[in-house]
Amino acid sequence: MLQPQAFFELARRYRVVFFDAYGVLKNATGIIPGVLDAIHRLRETGVDCIVVSNDASRSPEKMAAAYVHPVHGALITAEKNISSGLLASEYLAAKVRPKGQVAYLGKPASAHYIEAAGLSPVPLSECTGRDDLDALVFLDDEGFDWFRDVNLAVNLLRRVNIPVVVANADLTYPVRDGEVAIAVGSIANMVQQAIGKTFVCFGKPDVQIFSFTYARVRAEHAGITKRDVLMVGDTLQTDILGANKFGLDTALVLSGNTRKQAAEALIASSGIIPTFICDSIST
Amino acid sequence: MLQPQAFFELARRYRVVFFDAYGVLKNATGIIPGVLDAIHRLRETGVDCIVVSNDASRSPEKMAAAYVHPVHGALITAEKNISSGLLASEYLAAKVRPKGQVAYLGKPASAHYIEAAGLSPVPLSECTGRDDLDALVFLDDEGFDWFRDVNLAVNLLRRVNIPVVVANADLTYPVRDGEVAIAVGSIANMVQQAIGKTFVCFGKPDVQIFSFTYARVRAEHAGITKRDVLMVGDTLQTDILGANKFGLDTALVLSGNTRKQAAEALIASSGIIPTFICDSIST
Amino acid sequence: MLQPQAFFELARRYRVVFFDAYGVLKNATGIIPGVLDAIHRLRETGVDCIVVSNDASRSPEKMAAAYVHPVHGALITAEKNISSGLLASEYLAAKVRPKGQVAYLGKPASAHYIEAAGLSPVPLSECTGRDDLDALVFLDDEGFDWFRDVNLAVNLLRRVNIPVVVANADLTYPVRDGEVAIAVGSIANMVQQAIGKTFVCFGKPDVQIFSFTYARVRAEHAGITKRDVLMVGDTLQTDILGANKFGLDTALVLSGNTRKQAAEALIASSGIIPTFICDSIST
Amino acid sequence: MLQPQAFFELARRYRVVFFDAYGVLKNATGIIPGVLDAIHRLRETGVDCIVVSNDASRSPEKMAAAYVHPVHGALITAEKNISSGLLASEYLAAKVRPKGQVAYLGKPASAHYIEAAGLSPVPLSECTGRDDLDALVFLDDEGFDWFRDVNLAVNLLRRVNIPVVVANADLTYPVRDGEVAIAVGSIANMVQQAIGKTFVCFGKPDVQIFSFTYARVRAEHAGITKRDVLMVGDTLQTDILGANKFGLDTALVLSGNTRKQAAEALIASSGIIPTFICDSIST
Repeated sequence: MLQPQAFFELARRYRVVFFDAYGVLKNATGIIPGVLDAIHRLRETGVDCIVVSNDASRSPEKMAAAYVHPVHGALITAEKNISSGLLASEYLAAKVRPKGQVAYLGKPASAHYIEAAGLSPVPLSECTGRDDLDALVFLDDEGFDWFRDVNLAVNLLRRVNIPVVVANADLTYPVRDGEVAIAVGSIANMVQQAIGKTFVCFGKPDVQIFSFTYARVRAEHAGITKRDVLMVGDTLQTDILGANKFGLDTALVLSGNTRKQAAEALIASSGIIPTFICDSIST
Repeated sequence: MLQPQAFFELARRYRVVFFDAYGVLKNATGIIPGVLDAIHRLRETGVDCIVVSNDASRSPEKMAAAYVHPVHGALITAEKNISSGLLASEYLAAKVRPKGQVAYLGKPASAHYIEAAGLSPVPLSECTGRDDLDALVFLDDEGFDWFRDVNLAVNLLRRVNIPVVVANADLTYPVRDGEVAIAVGSIANMVQQAIGKTFVCFGKPDVQIFSFTYARVRAEHAGITKRDVLMVGDTLQTDILGANKFGLDTALVLSGNTRKQAAEALIASSGIIPTFICDSIST
Repeated sequence: MLQPQAFFELARRYRVVFFDAYGVLKNATGIIPGVLDAIHRLRETGVDCIVVSNDASRSPEKMAAAYVHPVHGALITAEKNISSGLLASEYLAAKVRPKGQVAYLGKPASAHYIEAAGLSPVPLSECTGRDDLDALVFLDDEGFDWFRDVNLAVNLLRRVNIPVVVANADLTYPVRDGEVAIAVGSIANMVQQAIGKTFVCFGKPDVQIFSFTYARVRAEHAGITKRDVLMVGDTLQTDILGANKFGLDTALVLSGNTRKQAAEALIASSGIIPTFICDSIST
Repeated sequence: MLQPQAFFELARRYRVVFFDAYGVLKNATGIIPGVLDAIHRLRETGVDCIVVSNDASRSPEKMAAAYVHPVHGALITAEKNISSGLLASEYLAAKVRPKGQVAYLGKPASAHYIEAAGLSPVPLSECTGRDDLDALVFLDDEGFDWFRDVNLAVNLLRRVNIPVVVANADLTYPVRDGEVAIAVGSIANMVQQAIGKTFVCFGKPDVQIFSFTYARVRAEHAGITKRDVLMVGDTLQTDILGANKFGLDTALVLSGNTRKQAAEALIASSGIIPTFICDSIST
């Protein structure tokens, strides 16, 4: 079994570190104590810190607001908050005609990713009887009436054949007091299974979010290779599986989904093997 | 390819005929024209007519009310309306302590199947914080707030380990104007996948509904064998697959889910082969 | 958590006990020590003992030969060895024309279940170019060349639309020294996924094997109900899940697949809850 | 419905065209007539032609040998034959210690992809009892005894926790006379399901093969964007789905898996929508 090691000593050996957000930097009560100091210290040694998360509920600007150190200021700025929402946005820009009409499920704030593609977001609930839509996007689990709008989505997609994008493939996400909530990826899967179509889904463990982020990193860091990047995550089936496959070194932290007592058994039963294990990024 | 044949001439050769309800006897606007006369004629020749349906939204008494002939009266009485709800009820009676508390998702009318087991139904939304429940049942897609109650179900089942029953395994059901609605089976699948547990699911194509119905038939018809029973349905993946496996002859009717032009290709691609094909039961 | 209890004191309260074979009565080295005495003792108190197993590799007569007590003679005779092979046989008798030609994958001994249906077994390897077959049956993982015959099966089923039966749905089975072997259910699943057709699969956890066995029991034991039957198995996902669903009491034994240290966690994570737990049937 | 258009007029508008191999450039009898002339003509207009295929059975050099024009010579050289085998090779180089021992299933020729990573290939059949292996790779469906070696793989992976790579995710591949053969992706899936572990699988529709190829293209073509690349394939579920998701324009050709009569219905039922349709690349 892998022995947990000190995060800072490990991470300083890399030029860039990718962090999952929930369970690594944050939990349901906010930023995990010690995390802002740990990120600051790492940046001081010259390591570039980037968040890579399955999330399309808020814009990169709003995500960045969480990572402001009380003394040292902004640590992870908007352009270093890479989310599955950005991939959905890039896809829509490539595949939908300019100024196209895109129906969505989610909060108005999540519609940012449609507007960023130069397209017009329309809440699905305002699309009744419209067959002129250019795409449908599952953005977030909040902001709509599930019963009404899931049934609207099913029947819209039985009538018209348009691209369907799932901007966050996660099945659940953590909320307060150890509870979880159904994420929009679960809702999209339910609709896919009910109608037998194949949607375009973004988010870890799919490697596209890593290739998207790595392309940005290469533009900024001359001569960088995958050996220079470490992915840090709390979940074997998304963070570790996807980054392993993309060819990065991986560190499983035990501050989120994967509890210390269960880690060894989960690694053995799943066959998903992180390169390293750390208790948390602040220890 | 199988040639469609006249239903009455086919069905009169059997002692008992099992009918699926939606797409065979009813559609979204009510009883399909000609069906009541066809059932009456079959009963007059001595053939026992039984409905076998995936449904837990109403009691057998309410189901029976749909099959009353304007001249000849009740054609398919309550005890001949066999639904997946009855199997859920039998399961609960066997597996839950007498007078146990059973949380449910569905309309109050669907709670009939919990009361019929001698148990106390409690809407899931009234169970917040209760860890003394004996079982959870997915009964119907209506009668609750999906967002609130699906998330309640997920967190309840992460806290306590109780039997979970899905009283209707269907993914969708037809509504008006060619539209469909998400059925409770889809919602239950979403929760199963989100939490990684295995629920007990009732309804075609699973054979238990056929063995349940056949046990009742044997008690009433001395010396009957499976060769004396015909299953009539409009869906290959549920009605025909399940009844074939149980060893019954099967007739696919083209009045519902399976359109005439598509039938041959669907049979070839699925490998699910009905014994007979009929246009409808009234032709 | 359930506390393990003494098997004999538990089992004697039932009129009939169903036993899984591997992991309960036998293991890779033969009958588990003490099992024959335990069965004899139970039978002496008037409890009927029946084996219910996923197996189509040998006839009931050959299965019965394993359960002969050195002093008291045959304990579980052929007609009390109920296997998924019998269900396949019953299905073929109902669905294939008399004296039909049935291709099979398996050892010649497994072809017993085709002959018992009054049909002619033909090894699949002798069917090249034949389009006159009436069915195909996956019986056993041995007795054929996997590479040659799996590819023959794939192409046969792309050419002709015939019923396909899987006589044992298990994915693996135990062999010596803690190793397992791929069972014929895995091979059949691979072919199903490659060609997109739906096969008819028999074996626990599907309830049909329980309803088949229970029908035999009712014919022999007047007035019996499901409350009078206990299912004993070593595997949550097959023995316990299926028998629970059929409405029987269930006892998980820790002498096979489910190790004592893991039982509690597996029950909690799967949500499959046995009525009782016993260390083994001989303790 | 999309109208088929002339391939050359379409393709010349791009700077780079990615081609699937089987069903587009080749079929079971060899290169499709007219294809070499079509590729030559496209290259003459300055369009870069690259093969992107799910294959790990032969080295890029051997793949390139198929694309030699009788008059104009080599059209698609080794470094322009991008296969899922290359991704497996890159993964092994990143994740296995230098000179590590890698067990494989496949022909000796497929072991090229292990050697190219600087590692030592060992046929799985020679690994009995060895627990010092560094990885296992599924390379090809030929070159080993399925029965013996699939069971060896299952038991090896139950004993040791090592990375497992599937170098070709396809379920089947075309052989002569309209027949298909089970591909190594099917075999790997069977093993995954039997033991419950998660393997690292390469090949379309997964986007990694597109991001790998696109990275090479960017190094060679200054200022290129995804808008300058067209993916041409015969299969909706792999070529079109994956390239759409990666953000490329896509052309479905009707010379392989997808027959002209079925194309419209398949696009509507799957929801996978190519940007263009062409009869073949030589018309």
